[in-house]
Amino acid sequence: MRKGDQTRERILLRAARVFNEKGYTGASLADIMKATGLEKGGIYNHFESKEKLALEAFDYSLQMIGKRFERNLSGKTHAADRLLGVVAVFDGYVEDPPVPGGCPVMNTAIDSDDGNPALRKRARQAMDWWRGLIVRTVAKGVERGELRRGADPEEVASLMISTVEGGIMMSKLYGDPVHVRRALGHLRRHIEKDLRA
Amino acid sequence: MRKGDQTRERILLRAARVFNEKGYTGASLADIMKATGLEKGGIYNHFESKEKLALEAFDYSLQMIGKRFERNLSGKTHAADRLLGVVAVFDGYVEDPPVPGGCPVMNTAIDSDDGNPALRKRARQAMDWWRGLIVRTVAKGVERGELRRGADPEEVASLMISTVEGGIMMSKLYGDPVHVRRALGHLRRHIEKDLRA
Repeated sequence: MRKGDQTRERILLRAARVFNEKGYTGASLADIMKATGLEKGGIYNHFESKEKLALEAFDYSLQMIGKRFERNLSGKTHAADRLLGVVAVFDGYVEDPPVPGGCPVMNTAIDSDDGNPALRKRARQAMDWWRGLIVRTVAKGVERGELRRGADPEEVASLMISTVEGGIMMSKLYGDPVHVRRALGHLRRHIEKDLRA
Repeated sequence: MRKGDQTRERILLRAARVFNEKGYTGASLADIMKATGLEKGGIYNHFESKEKLALEAFDYSLQMIGKRFERNLSGKTHAADRLLGVVAVFDGYVEDPPVPGGCPVMNTAIDSDDGNPALRKRARQAMDWWRGLIVRTVAKGVERGELRRGADPEEVASLMISTVEGGIMMSKLYGDPVHVRRALGHLRRHIEKDLRA
């Protein structure tokens, strides 16, 4: 990796955390300078604006989360196992987060309404990807007889994402992983008892 | 109501919305001046600091939500009906929110970590209240034979709150109430099928 690329990568890694912890509006250039150990010019050398940096840092965070999805879905073909794999992505998510500060998609969803609209659009696309993954898994699973006939792909997607994200929020508020753990436990039982054919 | 009290009330009503929509850090005094139509002095006449105003505005929001809890729990004694009443609090929550901007407890939980620590403490207390309500309802319900023996009060509390809050978050991100509606539907089925004795 060229030295310039290494610096770029380091800025993204550190900025992803700052934006995720402080929010788009709350994260100042001074915070990012402090986190990266670079001067203003050193940052603007690689990213033309705070907005552009925030977008790339968000994509960087998604890549980190994407790796956990890959790891947990790899080799799983049965729809119920794939749904359990999605749940497993969030085991240890609070204790050992891909990017500190909680879920970047939720953080952006909740972030002040006068935040970065391009970032909001990106968060919606990330959520579309996640919903799409669950919707396709459930639809195929029903088709193949791996899941029960009544399983509604869109309902399962809304439920799984809501329960996981709300659990992360509670665990973040209390600084205690027990809430997300209980949420994941419920989803596992729901998949085994109500969804698996 | 005295004129001074009316002004105070009006500031709280408007400031509650501003803080809930923009977050503690994101809401500026200028935003609050604009929302209330008052000058700086007019606001500081009633509240000694932004921090104090934010705390009182948060309590005001909780009162608004508390009224919905009262309305939906009133007259219900059976534990399963009380749990369904808690779910019903969030019917129409996105379309007709007690305070615009989503759930103030979730917003504060997600708000930047350098936000107001006193506000964070208050959000935790509000969450304790909500959890306590569900925990006591489930414990009593099991004791009275209204709910199944296996129902775990703390688990039901974490699950119900996670699912509702995550649903509100998704609906906020998409501007579409369908996600919270699906989340509430799941909780209703869970209460009837898995919890009611």
